[in-house]
Amino acid sequence: MTENTLLTREDRADGLSTLTLNRPDQFNSLSQALLAELQAAFDAIAADPAVRVVVIAGAGRAFCAGHDLKEMQANRDKAFMRALFRQCSKLMTTITQLPQPVIARVHGIATAAGCQLVSMCDLAVAADGARFATSGINVGLFCATPAVGLSRNVGRKQALEMLLTGEFIDAATAQRQGLINRVVPLADLDAEVERLAQSIINKSPVAVAMGKSMFYKQLEMGVEAAYQLASETMACNMMSEDAAEGIDAFTSKRKPEWRGR
Amino acid sequence: MTENTLLTREDRADGLSTLTLNRPDQFNSLSQALLAELQAAFDAIAADPAVRVVVIAGAGRAFCAGHDLKEMQANRDKAFMRALFRQCSKLMTTITQLPQPVIARVHGIATAAGCQLVSMCDLAVAADGARFATSGINVGLFCATPAVGLSRNVGRKQALEMLLTGEFIDAATAQRQGLINRVVPLADLDAEVERLAQSIINKSPVAVAMGKSMFYKQLEMGVEAAYQLASETMACNMMSEDAAEGIDAFTSKRKPEWRGR
Amino acid sequence: MTENTLLTREDRADGLSTLTLNRPDQFNSLSQALLAELQAAFDAIAADPAVRVVVIAGAGRAFCAGHDLKEMQANRDKAFMRALFRQCSKLMTTITQLPQPVIARVHGIATAAGCQLVSMCDLAVAADGARFATSGINVGLFCATPAVGLSRNVGRKQALEMLLTGEFIDAATAQRQGLINRVVPLADLDAEVERLAQSIINKSPVAVAMGKSMFYKQLEMGVEAAYQLASETMACNMMSEDAAEGIDAFTSKRKPEWRGR
Repeated sequence: MTENTLLTREDRADGLSTLTLNRPDQFNSLSQALLAELQAAFDAIAADPAVRVVVIAGAGRAFCAGHDLKEMQANRDKAFMRALFRQCSKLMTTITQLPQPVIARVHGIATAAGCQLVSMCDLAVAADGARFATSGINVGLFCATPAVGLSRNVGRKQALEMLLTGEFIDAATAQRQGLINRVVPLADLDAEVERLAQSIINKSPVAVAMGKSMFYKQLEMGVEAAYQLASETMACNMMSEDAAEGIDAFTSKRKPEWRGR
Repeated sequence: MTENTLLTREDRADGLSTLTLNRPDQFNSLSQALLAELQAAFDAIAADPAVRVVVIAGAGRAFCAGHDLKEMQANRDKAFMRALFRQCSKLMTTITQLPQPVIARVHGIATAAGCQLVSMCDLAVAADGARFATSGINVGLFCATPAVGLSRNVGRKQALEMLLTGEFIDAATAQRQGLINRVVPLADLDAEVERLAQSIINKSPVAVAMGKSMFYKQLEMGVEAAYQLASETMACNMMSEDAAEGIDAFTSKRKPEWRGR
Repeated sequence: MTENTLLTREDRADGLSTLTLNRPDQFNSLSQALLAELQAAFDAIAADPAVRVVVIAGAGRAFCAGHDLKEMQANRDKAFMRALFRQCSKLMTTITQLPQPVIARVHGIATAAGCQLVSMCDLAVAADGARFATSGINVGLFCATPAVGLSRNVGRKQALEMLLTGEFIDAATAQRQGLINRVVPLADLDAEVERLAQSIINKSPVAVAMGKSMFYKQLEMGVEAAYQLASETMACNMMSEDAAEGIDAFTSKRKPEWRGR
């Protein structure tokens, strides 16, 4: 485990890698330096077949409060802003392009780009006291980049209400609307994240990576093209050693043993 | 306030403009003349920076019962029909293109093009007794244009059930499925609409207009293109005087003072 | 009623056609032969204006357990797999292209391609004990083709959770997320399917066919193009004899008499 940095990464032998945003006194706001550390961590994980599932969490009292307003206010020129939002957008799409599934572990608040981070993770589990908002509008800054992820998780009227009012929704509402998968008491949050992560770690890494990649691609296609891609993906997946092993284990009622990615 | 017309418009000093469909004896059905008045009202509002939020409501016992079947029956030729549906479709897309957010205030019934009107507003608040249907199918006329808005608010199976059966859903179901934002007792309807409107009136008009426009554009893009548009929008928004004022007010713990659009 | 085949078809005079997957000992798994029978049945129904609504059901203890793993394991070559998934994908898109609405009647389990079949039907009614999963991932085979339908019924995080964990969701969850329309006790399942089917049988076949076709096309368009298609569809529909009859019957408070398709 690395320490005393803006981001800690802790890897376990079973393939779980936990990234913890580590600016607790700033509610883990995403400064340029923290964004750069996150990008570097995800780039390293993408190339590391030992990692099977990534959990992203926040140190201290909150998950993430979005961009670092002080840093933004101190750098009021358009070139800086363009670079900042492009850097952040690249990070967000890196998550969906990562071979491994990424689970957001959310407690406290997830606001603005922090809410966006939740929306762009593949899965999300929240403590029942967690709250979500796209609060940029309160300071005259419409959460445009968070809107991209949010509006692909929840209905358009529900997204617009959050974006135009800046008001919080609670964890139960976030789950009902589709922004998160599961809600549990804070005391059970780590155990629930663990259960979800273990379920995926038990699967074939080849099938998970192939499937995740196909999933996001087909979402942007018409149904006919989506089925062509999906059919080809399934044929390839079916020819893999893991599918042969998995089906054989299933018909023999034994536990499968997967090969690496 | 204009009166004795098919549509009344009442503007308040704080920027709230209320449009009331005023054909109560016809359940506010959308005749060609009423559609034309609505189009003219929205066109005027688009050019009027004093208006910050629009509420659309119905006089009498219902929000809106859709097109005027008698007028349609009296004009059974294809050129009339084409012109009618194009006029209505133009009105509906005008709402999403309007710089100001539009809130539907729904009571009684919202059927066919009335249900479509709810679906195309940015936000919607309904009385708990309100009911929604795409009932054209009952008279041999599939609600094709309402389907466009409806299927972009609720899931496809839920939309198809309404379109194929013509049956009503109640307000709680409409909220759960994503067609409306909030449900309150009829006695609290105006207060709840007011709360939602005030929350938006308190925001920067520049940020609201920039954000609403970006929101609908990015919905029709792939994620990569959406992030490019959103990043550029945020950089522009961040360079606005309102964002500087908003962030300064936030860090100084004072109320921001926005400039006009 | 045909019997002793992999698929039974039972047609009623009122226009209800029921297709029953009839491999109960294999949980109605979709062998190549069953897929071929389904394709032939749908192709025949598409050309048969006497059929107004199709119900698809499963014999025995389950709706459908997906592909036939034994058949797949016995034919492990890529050409076979490609052909199998293309055949299945063609069948699934045939359902949405069929002029008649298709209702899934779900009991027991609907897994993998069985869950996909539910997702691709226009409507679905389930017994309260029904359970849904995309369980291919348990045997090293990501449910890529099921993902196409599933992710167009439920939110992306909810779809990914099912696809990556292979875990079951119950009928109430499936309804809340949008995968099915209605949930009833098993004892009421046939009656509820009947109610839904009758509601559609009572409608104009011309309007239903025109509307269903338009519905899926416009879903893949931007809003402007969708409104152009929908406006033209409504103008055509409005010029049909059924619309004239329907509106006249409505204004005369009598029951309409529809012409055939």
